[in-house]
Amino acid sequence: MHIHKLFILIVLLAFSNTVSSQTDETVIKDIYHTSLTNGKSYEWLEYLTKQIGSRLSGSLGAERAVTWTKEELDKLGLDRVWLQPVMVPKWVRGAKEYAYIESAAGKTTSVNICALGGSVPTPALGVKANIVEVHDFEQLAALGTAGIEGKIVFYNRPMQTDLINPFDAYGKAGDQRRQGAFEASKYGAVGVIVRSLNSRLDDLPHTGNMSYRDLPESKRIPAAAISTNDAELLSTMLKLDDNIKFYFKQNCKQFNDVQSYNVIGQITGSQFPDEYMVVGGHLDSWDLGDGAHDDGVGVVQSMDVLRLFKELGIKPKRTIRVVLFMNEENGSRGGTKYAEEAKRNNENHIFALESDSGGFTPRGFSFDCNDAQFGNIAQWEPLFKPYLIHYFEKGESGADVGHLKNGTTVLAGLFPDPQRYFDYHHASNDTFDAIDKRELELGTATMASLLYLVDKYGIK
Amino acid sequence: MHIHKLFILIVLLAFSNTVSSQTDETVIKDIYHTSLTNGKSYEWLEYLTKQIGSRLSGSLGAERAVTWTKEELDKLGLDRVWLQPVMVPKWVRGAKEYAYIESAAGKTTSVNICALGGSVPTPALGVKANIVEVHDFEQLAALGTAGIEGKIVFYNRPMQTDLINPFDAYGKAGDQRRQGAFEASKYGAVGVIVRSLNSRLDDLPHTGNMSYRDLPESKRIPAAAISTNDAELLSTMLKLDDNIKFYFKQNCKQFNDVQSYNVIGQITGSQFPDEYMVVGGHLDSWDLGDGAHDDGVGVVQSMDVLRLFKELGIKPKRTIRVVLFMNEENGSRGGTKYAEEAKRNNENHIFALESDSGGFTPRGFSFDCNDAQFGNIAQWEPLFKPYLIHYFEKGESGADVGHLKNGTTVLAGLFPDPQRYFDYHHASNDTFDAIDKRELELGTATMASLLYLVDKYGIK
Repeated sequence: MHIHKLFILIVLLAFSNTVSSQTDETVIKDIYHTSLTNGKSYEWLEYLTKQIGSRLSGSLGAERAVTWTKEELDKLGLDRVWLQPVMVPKWVRGAKEYAYIESAAGKTTSVNICALGGSVPTPALGVKANIVEVHDFEQLAALGTAGIEGKIVFYNRPMQTDLINPFDAYGKAGDQRRQGAFEASKYGAVGVIVRSLNSRLDDLPHTGNMSYRDLPESKRIPAAAISTNDAELLSTMLKLDDNIKFYFKQNCKQFNDVQSYNVIGQITGSQFPDEYMVVGGHLDSWDLGDGAHDDGVGVVQSMDVLRLFKELGIKPKRTIRVVLFMNEENGSRGGTKYAEEAKRNNENHIFALESDSGGFTPRGFSFDCNDAQFGNIAQWEPLFKPYLIHYFEKGESGADVGHLKNGTTVLAGLFPDPQRYFDYHHASNDTFDAIDKRELELGTATMASLLYLVDKYGIK
Repeated sequence: MHIHKLFILIVLLAFSNTVSSQTDETVIKDIYHTSLTNGKSYEWLEYLTKQIGSRLSGSLGAERAVTWTKEELDKLGLDRVWLQPVMVPKWVRGAKEYAYIESAAGKTTSVNICALGGSVPTPALGVKANIVEVHDFEQLAALGTAGIEGKIVFYNRPMQTDLINPFDAYGKAGDQRRQGAFEASKYGAVGVIVRSLNSRLDDLPHTGNMSYRDLPESKRIPAAAISTNDAELLSTMLKLDDNIKFYFKQNCKQFNDVQSYNVIGQITGSQFPDEYMVVGGHLDSWDLGDGAHDDGVGVVQSMDVLRLFKELGIKPKRTIRVVLFMNEENGSRGGTKYAEEAKRNNENHIFALESDSGGFTPRGFSFDCNDAQFGNIAQWEPLFKPYLIHYFEKGESGADVGHLKNGTTVLAGLFPDPQRYFDYHHASNDTFDAIDKRELELGTATMASLLYLVDKYGIK
């Protein structure tokens, strides 16, 4: 009898163990199945990119994206959908830029440029000056005022192709774009031309944010990106004759801040409504393409995570929010605002996941958390192996959810295959046709599966 | 003194250990660095796809590819480069196919089809008949002669989108293309139209091999692939009116076998010249595109593996061969011939790696070997982690090297990200622009690194 009871107990334990572990596997399988056969991400992304298009902060596109995503979230039967007001900067490119290289003999060669976000315009008739190539701020400082004054500075340090993750190469080359004008203005430069942060050679200029910091308006010089092919051309022409001139004209303008919004939808937790989990991406984009990879993908995947929960009848124990952040690209005001409000309302955010690295095949996640938390989360990795997800590493999360960092909230970023991201980043080819439906939907399912596990087991 | 000697010995051992483990890491780092900054794969692929183009067995393109790859290998300073003769089938598509759906009222709608490789032509004026949709051979058998005779059979079972690896979905749907005509002819069908083996919806028909087995010529019926969009259209029109007719005309022809070649280059091993390692891909392609992903990629990556060895001064202890196999697509004669010759010459092949799954970001390798061998190879996996390579699994290798299977030779296949492969497979969009330079070069480096390890440590 004693033995019988023990036997039954063992059987029951074994059974409950099996059921519990099968349940996670089954739910995750359902999530992937539904995302791949009945997903909404791709359809939503088509609308966002082709019907709305680019969504630079303060633009009509951004305004329409706020209205439309709220309407779509309203249809999902969530517990709450609302707009969180946030003031955003408004920078407008104006008429297309124009630039050429002029030889000593007066022969001109047109090149492809675009103003960097936040740049001042050139004078109405443009800037023409000698141009000097540098690879970093040390070279710039070595040339000093004597070598720079009255000239245009050409930053031409390429993204390092032998770094396996192009995001590392982007990090190492990014100072040229962000601080190049600020640094060059110290020595009296009249403009800067920056090699596009693109890992391949093509004809597209890639925009992106730059800053003058605290420079007075009178000291601010226009800054533009040049395509990688034209950067190579310009460099070659400079080697042949360092007396060539560069002309460019851009027509951008900074306006006063305007009202905008983060868009938020929520399913309230059934057991622990005061524990918050966030999944999000950013609603704004640069103005040259349609913001498909950056970050239409993150927007529609995050929306689809909540839709999948509803569709599959997963009723979260904890509160899950989709947050579509405004103004990641040139101010991060939406991320800042969301974190401020969360703090003001004493909301206990246990987890926040961002998708802002493109719509390529998901490889895993990068976690910004402590070692103990990471150790617990890493135990889930085997559940993802059938879906070809192998990357669970500590690292950065996302520019928007990053504002929630407080030492206890676990922050995470979806890690899609990174190789082609900078082919499209901030350029006119970041459009719907650059997105593969399956890859997008696999990303959505990967995000939903992680949120399912965080909800079920909490963060330890 | 005794202690001193022991101390020195320990220091030496520690040092040699460190050097040895650092050496693998350093060599692999050099391989990736060189492939990404000074690779030849991409330039070679551009020539192969854009200057030579499609390379169906027996075609002028295939002949030119043999000549050109041999010439390129000749330039590398290998120990031996030669052509291995092999007779191959010659099937020619002829003039572009033409097809339409005809409503009961006589209204016609054009659709995109292409003859399947190996198919007989239609009569000169084409075939027009009622058409009946089935999803598998059981449905076909259930309809039987009464339901099929005199009609065209339309196989319309899609690739399953919820299988994570599309190669699995391809495997499950492929019987329609390969055996569809053979099966339908049993019941008196006059032709078959097969839904393209493409995981997405688009307008491109995808060809591929089919077989009539031992059917007498008189029983052979023409077989064509239809684009996935047109398969959906045809299915819808059949649901609206099952009395519609389908017309198609194709002009293909089977010729007598012709002479062709495998192209082989070799670096002879310095210590164990009688242990052979093969790295290869297939030189032939289908005729609709330029055979970029399938398998121009495998050709240029394999060539570049040997070039990297030379460039980096890696002198293999074992003999390494690049083998560019002819006729993988419609006969596998090159793979068969190479294995026959290897056996006839008593060559001890310890390892053979094939790249024939596209030029996408490499994820790892699939190994066809025994558990003990796999256990030893899997110990190298951590060396690949810095390169975002996480997939070392037992599985299939490649159609060409597969012929070397003998229970001791370890066979392997490069495993690139599989999600987009069937977007291009056997279709007219399998062209150079579908290849990303970085992804291609990462694949080359991943292959070269594995061969370096196999050479250094052998197969245990």
